[in-house]
Amino acid sequence: MDTKLNGPLGRIARVRKMMEERGYDAVVIRDEANLRWLTGAKGTFDYTFEFPHVTFITADECYFHTDSRYFNTFQENLPADSPWKLDMNEGAMPRWVAERARDTRSRVIAVEDDMQISFYFGIMRALEDLSITASLPQLHHDLQRMRAVKDDEEIALMRHAQSITDAAFQHMLTFIKPGLTEKEIRTELENFMFSNGADSLAFGSIVASGPNTANPHAVSSDRVVQRGDFVLMDYGAGYCDYRSDMTRTVVVGEPTPEQLDLYALVRRTHEECAAAVHAGVEGNDIFKLSRKIIGDAGYGDYYNHGLGHGVGIDIHEMPNFNRSMNIIEAGSVITIEPGVYLPGIGGVRLEDYGVVTENGYEPFTKSTHELQVIDC
Amino acid sequence: MDTKLNGPLGRIARVRKMMEERGYDAVVIRDEANLRWLTGAKGTFDYTFEFPHVTFITADECYFHTDSRYFNTFQENLPADSPWKLDMNEGAMPRWVAERARDTRSRVIAVEDDMQISFYFGIMRALEDLSITASLPQLHHDLQRMRAVKDDEEIALMRHAQSITDAAFQHMLTFIKPGLTEKEIRTELENFMFSNGADSLAFGSIVASGPNTANPHAVSSDRVVQRGDFVLMDYGAGYCDYRSDMTRTVVVGEPTPEQLDLYALVRRTHEECAAAVHAGVEGNDIFKLSRKIIGDAGYGDYYNHGLGHGVGIDIHEMPNFNRSMNIIEAGSVITIEPGVYLPGIGGVRLEDYGVVTENGYEPFTKSTHELQVIDC
Repeated sequence: MDTKLNGPLGRIARVRKMMEERGYDAVVIRDEANLRWLTGAKGTFDYTFEFPHVTFITADECYFHTDSRYFNTFQENLPADSPWKLDMNEGAMPRWVAERARDTRSRVIAVEDDMQISFYFGIMRALEDLSITASLPQLHHDLQRMRAVKDDEEIALMRHAQSITDAAFQHMLTFIKPGLTEKEIRTELENFMFSNGADSLAFGSIVASGPNTANPHAVSSDRVVQRGDFVLMDYGAGYCDYRSDMTRTVVVGEPTPEQLDLYALVRRTHEECAAAVHAGVEGNDIFKLSRKIIGDAGYGDYYNHGLGHGVGIDIHEMPNFNRSMNIIEAGSVITIEPGVYLPGIGGVRLEDYGVVTENGYEPFTKSTHELQVIDC
Repeated sequence: MDTKLNGPLGRIARVRKMMEERGYDAVVIRDEANLRWLTGAKGTFDYTFEFPHVTFITADECYFHTDSRYFNTFQENLPADSPWKLDMNEGAMPRWVAERARDTRSRVIAVEDDMQISFYFGIMRALEDLSITASLPQLHHDLQRMRAVKDDEEIALMRHAQSITDAAFQHMLTFIKPGLTEKEIRTELENFMFSNGADSLAFGSIVASGPNTANPHAVSSDRVVQRGDFVLMDYGAGYCDYRSDMTRTVVVGEPTPEQLDLYALVRRTHEECAAAVHAGVEGNDIFKLSRKIIGDAGYGDYYNHGLGHGVGIDIHEMPNFNRSMNIIEAGSVITIEPGVYLPGIGGVRLEDYGVVTENGYEPFTKSTHELQVIDC
C-alpha cells in the first residue's frame, strides 16, 4: 500500500476517493469500530450497542457529534493533525445529520448497512422537516472492504496483541492440570493477559475441556479437568483497540491414538490451507480446500463453521474463508482455524492469525503447532 | 406482577398481548438480549454485533432460526417447556422471515427499532420475491418497555450478581494502596469477581485515580495511585446473562476538606433522589431533582450525565432518569448514580442499583455510603 495512505489521514483519503467514485456527497458513520479507524482516537470508544456518536464526512469536512460524557476525552485523544470538527449539543442526532446536509448542500448521503432503522427513518423525517430532498444509499460494505486491508500502524498493533497472546499460551502450559475447573483456567488466562499489557479481552475467552470441547462456542463451566481431557482455549488480547485471536487444543496426560489422529488431521488441514493463501486467492476456494481435506478423512459432518475471518478493530472483519465469495487482498489480516468436533467425545481446533502477502501468508502467531501434552 | 407471567412463557404471553393490542400478526426479533429474555436459554448468547439468530413470533407459533455453531447449544439450553421451534439451514435469514410470513399468512410484521437497514430492506425484497404485500412497522420500544419490568426470576439473578459485586468492593478496600496502577487495581477487581461466581463482566470496569476520576468514562491507565487520590471504581458482574452495576469512590489517605465536601454533596444527592423514587414517578423529575441539588451547590456545570438507567440483560435498559420522559413502573431495576467531576482535580460518583416498589425503592447494593478511607 502507498505509505502516504497510512494512519487516519490516509484512511479518510481512501473514504473520499470511494465517495468520489460512487458519487456520494457525504457519508454518515456511527459504528465505533469504523470511527476508531477513521479518527485514530485510541482508548476512547466503548464498542457497546449504544451508538453515542455520529459523523458526517464530505469531500472537504469531517464533522463529529458526540455527547458530554465523551467530549473532553476526544479532545485529548484525537491525533494532533486531526481534521475532525467536534460538536456537542442537546439536539437529536438525526436532526444534526439533516442540518449538516443542509449546510454542506449534500444530496447523496451514504449510510452504513448496519444503521438502525429508527435512526435511518429519523434522518429521513429530519430531512423532510428541512424540506431537503436527499437519497440515503447504503455503503454496501465499502468501509468494511477498506478496513480489511491493514496499514503498517495497524499491523504493528496486532503483532503486539499477539505477542501477549502467545506469552499467555506458554504460561497456561505450566498452569493447566487435573483438578482445575474450566472457569479457573479462564480466569488465569485472562488475568495473565491483563497483567502483561492487554487493555481488554479480544472477546470472552472460550475455555472448554473434555466433551465440552465438542461445542465450538462453549461457555466455560465448573467442569473439573481430568487426565485424558482435551483442553481447548480460544482467546485473544485487545491492545489499543486492535485484537488478536488464537486457539490451541492441548491434551492432559498421555494422548490416545484417537486424540493423536484427530489432532493430526486438524493440524494438516490448517497447514495445507495456510500454504495455499496468498494475495488474489478466492476465500471460498481455501474454505473448500479445508472441507475437502476433512471430508476425505471422513469427518465432514463434524466441521461446522468457517475456516477463518478477518480481524482488526472488530474480532470478525472481512475477508472471510467460508461459503461467501471474496478475493483476499494483500494486507488482509486473517485467521485460519479449522476444527473437528465429535459430540460426546470432544473437539480440536487450531487457530493462528497473520497477514496476507503477495506470495503467501505470514502468521503473527508464534506458538507451536505440535500437540502440547500436559504432564500429570 | 401476576406470578403466571413469570419466566419466559410469561414473557411470550406479554408479547402476544401487545401484538393483539397493536394489531400485529407477527414480530421479528434478532437482538440477543431480547432473545435471552424470550427464550430463557442461559449461557447461549454472545451479545456481539453479529446477530446470528432471527425469530418469528405469531399468536400461535415461535420460530427460531440459528446457525450450525449454535444449534446444539440451543437444544441443550432451552427450558423443557419451551415452545420454540428451532430451525437451521443454509438460506439467507431475510428469505427465511419472508417464508414464515408466507406460511403463517402474516401481513403486519413488527420489527425492532434497532434492526439493521440491510436486514430490513432484505426482508422487503424477499417478501416482494414471494409476491407478499406486508407492512413492517417498528416496535417503538414496546419490548424494551416490557423488559423494564422485571419478574421474580430476573430479580433473583440480579440480587446474586450484586452480592458478588459488593463482596468485590470489600475485597478492594484491603487491596488498594499507593504504588499500584489503575490497571493492576482493575485486574484484581475483575479477577475477584470471576473467582467468586461471575460468569462475565457486566461491562469493561472503570478504575480511575487522581485527576483521571474527572473523566466519567475513563479507561484504566498505568497511572500509579498516590496518597491523596480519589480512586473511582464503576463495575459489575454478569451472572446468567444478567448484570449488576455499582460505583464507589474511595480516598487514599486522609481526605482533604474539599474531598469531604465533594463526596458529601454527591452522597446527599444520591440519597435524596433515592428517597424520592417510587412507582408512578416521572423519571425526568428525579433527574431534575438531582440537577437542582448539585446546581444549588454551585456544581451544575460539573455533572454532565444522566442520574440513572434501567439494568437487566443489557447494562443500559429502560427506564431512564435523564432528560427524556418516562414513568417509572414497579418492578423496574434502576441505578442511581449522581457524580461531580472537576477537570484537572478529580471526580466522585456514588452508584447503587435496585428495584422500584409501589412505595419506594429497594437497593440490591449493600455496600456503605460512608466515604471509605484507605489507610496508608
